[in-house]
Amino acid sequence: MDFSYNDKTKRYREAVRSFMEENIYPNEEVFQKQLEAQESRWGEVPPIVEELKKKAKSEGLWNLFLPDEEHGAGLSNVEYAPLCEEMGRSMLAPEIFNCNAPDTGNMELLSMYGSEEQKEKWLHPLLNGEIRSCFAMTEPDVASSDATNIASQIENKGDHYLLNGTKWWSTGAMDPRCSFAIFMGKTDPEAPRHKQQSMIIVPMDAEGVTIKRPLNVFGYDHAPHGHAEIEFKDVQVPKENLILGEGRGFEIAQGRLGPGRIHHCMRLIGAAERALEDLCKRVQNRVAFHRPLADQGVIREWIADSRRELEQARLLTLQTAYQMDTLGNKEAKAAIAMIKITAPEMALKVMDRAIQAHGAAGVSDDYTIAMNYANARTLRLADGPDEVHKRQVAKLELSKYKEDTYARA
Amino acid sequence: MDFSYNDKTKRYREAVRSFMEENIYPNEEVFQKQLEAQESRWGEVPPIVEELKKKAKSEGLWNLFLPDEEHGAGLSNVEYAPLCEEMGRSMLAPEIFNCNAPDTGNMELLSMYGSEEQKEKWLHPLLNGEIRSCFAMTEPDVASSDATNIASQIENKGDHYLLNGTKWWSTGAMDPRCSFAIFMGKTDPEAPRHKQQSMIIVPMDAEGVTIKRPLNVFGYDHAPHGHAEIEFKDVQVPKENLILGEGRGFEIAQGRLGPGRIHHCMRLIGAAERALEDLCKRVQNRVAFHRPLADQGVIREWIADSRRELEQARLLTLQTAYQMDTLGNKEAKAAIAMIKITAPEMALKVMDRAIQAHGAAGVSDDYTIAMNYANARTLRLADGPDEVHKRQVAKLELSKYKEDTYARA
Amino acid sequence: MDFSYNDKTKRYREAVRSFMEENIYPNEEVFQKQLEAQESRWGEVPPIVEELKKKAKSEGLWNLFLPDEEHGAGLSNVEYAPLCEEMGRSMLAPEIFNCNAPDTGNMELLSMYGSEEQKEKWLHPLLNGEIRSCFAMTEPDVASSDATNIASQIENKGDHYLLNGTKWWSTGAMDPRCSFAIFMGKTDPEAPRHKQQSMIIVPMDAEGVTIKRPLNVFGYDHAPHGHAEIEFKDVQVPKENLILGEGRGFEIAQGRLGPGRIHHCMRLIGAAERALEDLCKRVQNRVAFHRPLADQGVIREWIADSRRELEQARLLTLQTAYQMDTLGNKEAKAAIAMIKITAPEMALKVMDRAIQAHGAAGVSDDYTIAMNYANARTLRLADGPDEVHKRQVAKLELSKYKEDTYARA
Amino acid sequence: MDFSYNDKTKRYREAVRSFMEENIYPNEEVFQKQLEAQESRWGEVPPIVEELKKKAKSEGLWNLFLPDEEHGAGLSNVEYAPLCEEMGRSMLAPEIFNCNAPDTGNMELLSMYGSEEQKEKWLHPLLNGEIRSCFAMTEPDVASSDATNIASQIENKGDHYLLNGTKWWSTGAMDPRCSFAIFMGKTDPEAPRHKQQSMIIVPMDAEGVTIKRPLNVFGYDHAPHGHAEIEFKDVQVPKENLILGEGRGFEIAQGRLGPGRIHHCMRLIGAAERALEDLCKRVQNRVAFHRPLADQGVIREWIADSRRELEQARLLTLQTAYQMDTLGNKEAKAAIAMIKITAPEMALKVMDRAIQAHGAAGVSDDYTIAMNYANARTLRLADGPDEVHKRQVAKLELSKYKEDTYARA
Repeated sequence: MDFSYNDKTKRYREAVRSFMEENIYPNEEVFQKQLEAQESRWGEVPPIVEELKKKAKSEGLWNLFLPDEEHGAGLSNVEYAPLCEEMGRSMLAPEIFNCNAPDTGNMELLSMYGSEEQKEKWLHPLLNGEIRSCFAMTEPDVASSDATNIASQIENKGDHYLLNGTKWWSTGAMDPRCSFAIFMGKTDPEAPRHKQQSMIIVPMDAEGVTIKRPLNVFGYDHAPHGHAEIEFKDVQVPKENLILGEGRGFEIAQGRLGPGRIHHCMRLIGAAERALEDLCKRVQNRVAFHRPLADQGVIREWIADSRRELEQARLLTLQTAYQMDTLGNKEAKAAIAMIKITAPEMALKVMDRAIQAHGAAGVSDDYTIAMNYANARTLRLADGPDEVHKRQVAKLELSKYKEDTYARA
Repeated sequence: MDFSYNDKTKRYREAVRSFMEENIYPNEEVFQKQLEAQESRWGEVPPIVEELKKKAKSEGLWNLFLPDEEHGAGLSNVEYAPLCEEMGRSMLAPEIFNCNAPDTGNMELLSMYGSEEQKEKWLHPLLNGEIRSCFAMTEPDVASSDATNIASQIENKGDHYLLNGTKWWSTGAMDPRCSFAIFMGKTDPEAPRHKQQSMIIVPMDAEGVTIKRPLNVFGYDHAPHGHAEIEFKDVQVPKENLILGEGRGFEIAQGRLGPGRIHHCMRLIGAAERALEDLCKRVQNRVAFHRPLADQGVIREWIADSRRELEQARLLTLQTAYQMDTLGNKEAKAAIAMIKITAPEMALKVMDRAIQAHGAAGVSDDYTIAMNYANARTLRLADGPDEVHKRQVAKLELSKYKEDTYARA
Repeated sequence: MDFSYNDKTKRYREAVRSFMEENIYPNEEVFQKQLEAQESRWGEVPPIVEELKKKAKSEGLWNLFLPDEEHGAGLSNVEYAPLCEEMGRSMLAPEIFNCNAPDTGNMELLSMYGSEEQKEKWLHPLLNGEIRSCFAMTEPDVASSDATNIASQIENKGDHYLLNGTKWWSTGAMDPRCSFAIFMGKTDPEAPRHKQQSMIIVPMDAEGVTIKRPLNVFGYDHAPHGHAEIEFKDVQVPKENLILGEGRGFEIAQGRLGPGRIHHCMRLIGAAERALEDLCKRVQNRVAFHRPLADQGVIREWIADSRRELEQARLLTLQTAYQMDTLGNKEAKAAIAMIKITAPEMALKVMDRAIQAHGAAGVSDDYTIAMNYANARTLRLADGPDEVHKRQVAKLELSKYKEDTYARA
Repeated sequence: MDFSYNDKTKRYREAVRSFMEENIYPNEEVFQKQLEAQESRWGEVPPIVEELKKKAKSEGLWNLFLPDEEHGAGLSNVEYAPLCEEMGRSMLAPEIFNCNAPDTGNMELLSMYGSEEQKEKWLHPLLNGEIRSCFAMTEPDVASSDATNIASQIENKGDHYLLNGTKWWSTGAMDPRCSFAIFMGKTDPEAPRHKQQSMIIVPMDAEGVTIKRPLNVFGYDHAPHGHAEIEFKDVQVPKENLILGEGRGFEIAQGRLGPGRIHHCMRLIGAAERALEDLCKRVQNRVAFHRPLADQGVIREWIADSRRELEQARLLTLQTAYQMDTLGNKEAKAAIAMIKITAPEMALKVMDRAIQAHGAAGVSDDYTIAMNYANARTLRLADGPDEVHKRQVAKLELSKYKEDTYARA
């Protein structure tokens, strides 16, 4: 296990940090103000976004997430981890570097499983940051944590596929730049459980695709990208849009989810670091009962516990990245499941303390802590709830001892 | 300790429950839709509110919170507790029964400490539900958990007072019906610490009173009442608006806060009950991995723990109510401090589990859980952060043993 | 719900308290010293025990646990609760008042289900404190939390029963005064699951009864009563020793366990109170980093949290007692299950903090905290592990909503 | 950060593992039985100990802890960590490899700060495993977590030192092989706070040294080495026994404690691994309610959480070891403080679950879990309570932001 930052990582990290200091943090408020000044929160994108994207791209801070050297930066997970953590410090940052979910997952998916034609048409504009995309998997009517529950249909009609179903929590679907969805549904309900599902590319402007409404996360709408409920009603999609082949939806989902999950965790670590920083600064600048809050033993305990939890979550994430790099995503599945539980759990604890240290300001939008808390809470559900990941970890742990008999010592 | 519900309580409880079933729950969505249809979230109040208030008033379900028999229902805290709990099940309900913060606190304050003239002019319209009010205590620039930090000025100018200061988290101040604020500030910065502060009634339309902005709570704006940052700049207020006398602000604050705190706790218990109900219903209606979620041992543990925590918090609240009724608010201060910590802590745990059981739906506005979670979280800060209350409880506990020497057993 | 202490309770409580102050606390060390001075920890009982029993009996502080007015004090559960709590403050106390497990459970069982002959022969000497008894239910080879697993045999041989099986954790079986065991086993393995088991009285000196060894609890042997592993090999027991009838073992177990469980909880509350007292005294008498430990915010938080948890657990226990008194043990089963989880959980938290506040002294035998901690930990397992009780609570909670359908709000 | 195991580590680890399998685990019961068969628990040492020591020494598995290449194995902390973890799996193991506290700390201390004469006389026999030693620092009458409280006297009498004071929790002092104590006390009570204390070697057979009694940890006496209360009354010690010089006690303590603390943590990780193994085996071999305990979701959650917590604590420990190796013990002080809190906390959680999964057997001595739990609990106090370490971590964290001003974002 070697987690040291190599020279390439150090250079990139320095560059990302500078970019954050110069371009991201000072523009967080600009972004909010532009958004509020829009006629609608959904039809437009604050201009600062494309400005900053252009800048990041020109500085070579672009598509760093993509291990594929042809299309991306060719960084390993261990190399990308500290960069992604930096980006996670601001909700504004990931898109600026073209490193934001769900586009990263979709790019990874298409670069791994897409046909040449699909890459040309959908992957390249995404890589260039010209369009955005969404992932249409979760359904309101079934427990999607068990992916076999997914009930949407992808019917093979000979010369095209016919799609029906309702999806929700499709992040990014509200964005006016969102051009296509990757849609998961059953091509063959009679096939063995893990061969029923397929994935297909659906243009957002296809007939029968209707955005029903945006969904809030706590009170946040996450405009302009948002999270949508989408109805797909008798949507005709050309056959060449099917990815990899009928019945291979599960296989693709497995491949897609590993990197997506670890990226969420890396970003959460950055967000938690920022919350802890805010906490430490705040308590040294507020006085109650004749001394700075920083002198209160209880607050010192919060700080010590936060630092301990943060370090541990980061190390576990790096270990996971290392396993993904050296053993492959499949062998790293227990590790991925563990950080998917651990990072949000840690972030929520750290952020909760930061909120408390800020008093009422902590739950407001004067700081980024409440917004990040809401986001971290959601990540205990997105890409599978904690409980599903715990089952997975336990199953693998128990399997080490299957043949044992166990006598009293 | 007798917590039994007497006949009066039982009758009221039945009536409040029926009213909730018939008029509140079915109109939660109506309220939201009316609010969303408004041109602005702040200038108007959804018409359903005044309709329902009229109805509740006509049924005698009005001002139940006020122990004063002349102006209110004359209920003790033990009698009011189960009614307030019922109201707490819906964010829409308390105002409908004219039992919502901060108006209840202000009514209590004026009925206890107001002059006859103040009662006539400000209390009676509040009791009638004709106007609303706010409480301007917390300040952005100081740790208001230590009330001696409050820095706003109330200068005695002979024939009037001159007010200066910035307040925030003044709940209800955004409401177009909000007619006055009770403002806390220093009349004499040189007086002994607990004699510096006074309270005064400020009409919201006084010159120099400027609403700077609404404040969000985890993204929720709580329109139409909201929480405001308010600037008071050289505001002239007539001398007769001063409450009780110069230097008596602390004394009033102490008297006001006890009932206000326990009402929050009662409501939280109701909100937590609703979350647990939602959880129990949800898990019996969702299937994952071939069985209802309700059959998962982990979810059963959530339910059992929630029920245990709920019962305990309710009992502690009833015990506190009993002490307030029989010993007075001052003697009950340890008990009040304890529930002020316990009820939000419990509610957050129960609601967090309910969110998790609902999947992504849990963080959305399709259920009331996320909104209530944000509210409960805020109540770990409002009316004093947990840490201040814990200090209080510990101090009283330690004082039992002050004279002891303690040898090894 | 009326938990007030009536006059009878108040009188008894005063008497028990005085007795504790005068006779129990000062003799805890005497008891330990006498025990250590014995040749063996198992063959004898420190003489102070019988001395004190005599005294308590002469003062009428005897068999207070037994609601039966003929044989006991005729106290309700609500009345007994504060007395039992007092006794729980010292591990030495319960036996002195003839209120110790498992004898109380056995006395209750015999007074409810025993034949006149059984009462005469076994109950009366127990009530008089002349003998002691044990309960032989748990088995080493099966998960006894599921009582249907219990595999010992009680074979009907026409004129007698033949018993075979190994039991363990039979508390009190090491005591030289232990005269009989109530033994649970299968009379009919083919009967319906809840009709297979019976209970029978086995004299400890019957042929085939062999004490295999004492069992330690975190290093404590709990001499002289201890916890034994006992082998029953071809033990012949007269037919009249069977309690209530063949196949009624479950029914009896259900009846026995309710009071036994709540008594444990009452005692734990007393033990936790003592730990909190010790904590409060200690921290006011130790100085570190220039101030008493009591001035450390973290320690104040421990105290506040302990007080909150203690109050809540006591109220939940009183509510349970009230339900048992007014609705019966069966209707109170959810409440009993809840305190069986809650009281040890609370006690462990309070005691853990008390240990920490005492430094290394806290884990030693210089205070009673570590010993009580070990005991409280065991009570998360004894009479059914937490998990079994949580299942029970959840099942009852879920059953409230069975018929519901649950639409999105 | 490179935590990979190099070839040397791998070879040693394999050797230690084999030795554990072949010689330690099978002899745990032998050790207990020999101990129980002794006339006294304190006068003798079970013969298996010296037998196994001889074997380990002959296989080169000896003094692995000591980084000093001349006297020890010359391993770095990162290299030693996995070996120490293996040893931690059994309470019997560390001494067998001559790697047990407090002798390791004393050897390290003497090899760093001892004079040649002191090394010859006291270090070499310790390194050879011929004698044992103890550390006499903690005092019953003061909060020793603040080392400036330590009140024992070391009076310079010209040709010798005169020692007075009472120490307790001197681990190993009960052992008949214990030949000397390193004693901490004040040579100059008037000196600046951190120059008052000195350390001196005291032969256990010096006149005036009296073992008052052994101290239990929960109910464990940890015979034959034990933990003693020792009276030092007018003990004359030759001047050459003073270590490093008068007033340098603090400096030595700082140097001694780092490695000692991390060794405890490494061992705790091993002990927790064993508990998790025991848990996993147990639950696959017990059936309740018609299925193996391993199929209960709650138990799977315990396993997943345990694995997550274990991995994180191990990584944090390795990171600390790495910092100690590359930056030195002083620079690594925040890291050392963090694992000193984290490892016991983690171990207690894992072991508590393992206890619960074992039912009553879990608290008994049929498994090693309860014994290890008691030990882990003590390590939240030994070498400084958690609270002192948290203060340290918080102080360092806060110092990062000292100059900052902090405006609302």
